Amino acid sequence: MSTPSAPTEVSMETIVALCKRRGFIFQSSEIYGGLNGFFDYGPLGSEMKKNIRDCWWNDMVRRRDDIVGIESSIIMHPKVWHASGHVAGFTDPLVDCKVSKQRYRADQLFFAPVVIDGKTAGYVSALESESTATELQAAAENFKRKKAIQGALAPVEPRDLTEAQPDEIPQIPSPATGEPGSLTPPRAFNMMFETYVGALRDASAVAYLRPETAQGMFVDFKNVVDTGRVKLPFGIAQVGKSFRNEITPRNFIFRSREFEQMEMEYFIHEDADWSKCHKDWIEWCRQWLISIGLPESHLSLYDHPKAKLSFYSKGTTDIMFKYPFGVQELWGIAARGNYDLTQHAEASGKPQEIFDEATKKKFVPHVIEPAVGTDRIFLAALCAAYVEEQVTDEKGNTETRIVLRLSPRIAPVKVAVLPLLKNKEALVGRAQELYKKIKRKYTAFYDESGAIGRRYRRQDEIGTPWCVTIDFDTIEKDGTFTLRDRDTMQQKRITEDDLFKLLDEQVY
Amino acid sequence: MSTPSAPTEVSMETIVALCKRRGFIFQSSEIYGGLNGFFDYGPLGSEMKKNIRDCWWNDMVRRRDDIVGIESSIIMHPKVWHASGHVAGFTDPLVDCKVSKQRYRADQLFFAPVVIDGKTAGYVSALESESTATELQAAAENFKRKKAIQGALAPVEPRDLTEAQPDEIPQIPSPATGEPGSLTPPRAFNMMFETYVGALRDASAVAYLRPETAQGMFVDFKNVVDTGRVKLPFGIAQVGKSFRNEITPRNFIFRSREFEQMEMEYFIHEDADWSKCHKDWIEWCRQWLISIGLPESHLSLYDHPKAKLSFYSKGTTDIMFKYPFGVQELWGIAARGNYDLTQHAEASGKPQEIFDEATKKKFVPHVIEPAVGTDRIFLAALCAAYVEEQVTDEKGNTETRIVLRLSPRIAPVKVAVLPLLKNKEALVGRAQELYKKIKRKYTAFYDESGAIGRRYRRQDEIGTPWCVTIDFDTIEKDGTFTLRDRDTMQQKRITEDDLFKLLDEQVY
Repeated sequence: MSTPSAPTEVSMETIVALCKRRGFIFQSSEIYGGLNGFFDYGPLGSEMKKNIRDCWWNDMVRRRDDIVGIESSIIMHPKVWHASGHVAGFTDPLVDCKVSKQRYRADQLFFAPVVIDGKTAGYVSALESESTATELQAAAENFKRKKAIQGALAPVEPRDLTEAQPDEIPQIPSPATGEPGSLTPPRAFNMMFETYVGALRDASAVAYLRPETAQGMFVDFKNVVDTGRVKLPFGIAQVGKSFRNEITPRNFIFRSREFEQMEMEYFIHEDADWSKCHKDWIEWCRQWLISIGLPESHLSLYDHPKAKLSFYSKGTTDIMFKYPFGVQELWGIAARGNYDLTQHAEASGKPQEIFDEATKKKFVPHVIEPAVGTDRIFLAALCAAYVEEQVTDEKGNTETRIVLRLSPRIAPVKVAVLPLLKNKEALVGRAQELYKKIKRKYTAFYDESGAIGRRYRRQDEIGTPWCVTIDFDTIEKDGTFTLRDRDTMQQKRITEDDLFKLLDEQVY
Repeated sequence: MSTPSAPTEVSMETIVALCKRRGFIFQSSEIYGGLNGFFDYGPLGSEMKKNIRDCWWNDMVRRRDDIVGIESSIIMHPKVWHASGHVAGFTDPLVDCKVSKQRYRADQLFFAPVVIDGKTAGYVSALESESTATELQAAAENFKRKKAIQGALAPVEPRDLTEAQPDEIPQIPSPATGEPGSLTPPRAFNMMFETYVGALRDASAVAYLRPETAQGMFVDFKNVVDTGRVKLPFGIAQVGKSFRNEITPRNFIFRSREFEQMEMEYFIHEDADWSKCHKDWIEWCRQWLISIGLPESHLSLYDHPKAKLSFYSKGTTDIMFKYPFGVQELWGIAARGNYDLTQHAEASGKPQEIFDEATKKKFVPHVIEPAVGTDRIFLAALCAAYVEEQVTDEKGNTETRIVLRLSPRIAPVKVAVLPLLKNKEALVGRAQELYKKIKRKYTAFYDESGAIGRRYRRQDEIGTPWCVTIDFDTIEKDGTFTLRDRDTMQQKRITEDDLFKLLDEQVY
């Protein structure tokens, strides 16, 4: 029997360990010591990631009438990134420690003056974490004690290094050495990976790995309009890899250097009610996350303050998710005006307009952009699904059951088929027959080894929603088999037809 | 009525034009003049490409018991490519024309001495094409005439520039200028795209975009073995982008710089009958191509001659396809021994072995590798499917019907739903209802505008296997609708249940 329990407050260590143990995610090139910011998806991970991607594609493109898909290349003409503003502005503030050769993102490096009796006696620093403020306070107290300065220590007021005054920087200790004097002032570091296309290696051959898939939709806009029989409002969507040369990749697959995006550009009339459309898309995205099993309780909204928006932006709202390392951005929904199309029209000399049948005028459509990372959804789904339960077996023994309560839509395996005994030909034969039939359309797993309870546990840990057991009743009586539910652990008899009906309803 | 016809000998111009006109494939960054060797898939192209990829994944991974999938990163640790031999050896011979700055692949640049009365009077050159020999012969005759040399011209004997003697190179005319003296001797040009990971720009930060997905399977081999409950023989498969800095991309998406691969490494016992396994995989791949609609008549096999194989290779067979530009490699099936795992074991210091329960010995498994490009299959399917037919309508008028005879498995749209008239609410209502029901699982297209014949033609040109017409019998009589077959143009009445049965049988 199962004790219903609230979602476990799972640690990242637990998730990372599960991912490696059960083949969801490995470090890239692990046998060579790994490569910071790059990850590989294993057998179960690649299935689950494909499921997330396919659910998104089905719901966003195939099931809708107003959205079409594209697949643009990762390497595009470099002029695209000049026009989009990425060459000039897609930067993070970088700080070097000249002694240790460590590099930091300035906005993740915090510092505070140590103020004693109203006078600044020195500086302390700490890297961004859940406990930055506490660490800085402790460091300040330590500083005062070490230097043996008398007086009242003021509470520290942390700032990040982008907010440091030029005369403060030489006094801020490097987190690597603990000593001041080695940190450089922040400089803008462009996060696009560069390469050369063709055999030449000069400025004319420089190209970039795309830092977002969105520009593909803008650059192909006219081609889609001219061929796709679309009319406003309509969207162009794509799924694909993007690359950002992050200074400090972190939080597992949350911020990596190579990642997958699912983006959609929804083009609307220049006079349309963008605010309503923006709100509608925020709600659509939120509902979609719930439809693939993310708990509503973990989701929240964050409106970017007007002052921090780009000049062309009308508004951006992020759907936030409660990760083990804090509440972080999952899905950004931006109202970008007609900035991108206008930029490309200017840079290419090719008008990016739509003809309005009603007013007989041409105009550049505006756009609402919901942009999400597949890897971030993957991590969110995994963290929210992880539960450790205390269960009691028939003999009264208590044990811990690890369950991934994944939605059937994204679970890597939909059904496990288990013959009650492996040495009974009739049971095995029937189980194999059913297994093959399921596998034509659904991922299934066949397992005949070990006690049935252990086999259930193995499936629980990888999130398989249903186990089907072929027993003597199946072959001797009515053909039904036992359907065991992952979450309730309830068992019931079910016919083959009803099993397929269940799958058809729950998986798509 | 349709006159059954042999597949059209379609030209590449026709295919490229169709791709652009109907939104299958665009040049990448077209508004900026394009980027040589890069392509974007449009609304229909991205659907068809996804179908090819999903069919492969279903048949290769999900429906089999012995193969698991992975998804490794595009940028891997640079040591991977040192160990695999790509840093040292993944090169093409490059020739520069110092005057025009043009670059050529030496093995695609042909030349021949002009031999008159047994004496070499000069050289002619031509780029590789269907008619290289003819062009060279004509050039030789022209040369003789221009120089006004008397005597008997010997038939030209073409060689490519990798076979040129050092003293011949200065005498061979550049194809760009027509004059000798400007071509450099061939040099090895590494085809891997390079980039820098992290904020440093020195040798320690160099990384490569993978030129193949295969190494991901080798580098993750141990992780999969340790987590995946696999036992020999078993395979690891993946689908993903690869990049090769081709000197001369050509033949549309056949040889591009960014492309998608579908590769599988099938690991076998060191004592297994590799030759039989190799043959089995060749046949599996051939049958799979037929299952997605490639005509058997266009397929052939090419065994790489022993002398041209790498030292570790036991044999490679290519499945060739008859493209409009010639018979070319589609799918390579290589028996690679245990070279790759052995290389990575040495370079990483991590043994890549399997324990043999029978002999109680450890060994490094051997591998059979079927490797194919999604884009090449896409192009093959499109070229083979393209047919122009002369059809006669009821009034006796003859017109040309363009049809893409794509397999229902990969056709971008499976069903078009057409109400007979668009101003009859009952027809439109029933059509919309059916359309929505189909769209839950299958790509469908709703079209109510224009004469029914024209609507059929539009679907024929994009390869939609079935059109369903809702007419007055549907709403007033038995609920059946007209099912029109793309290839035969035959029409019959069908029930909704039978339509879904048809889709279930033909599409998966």
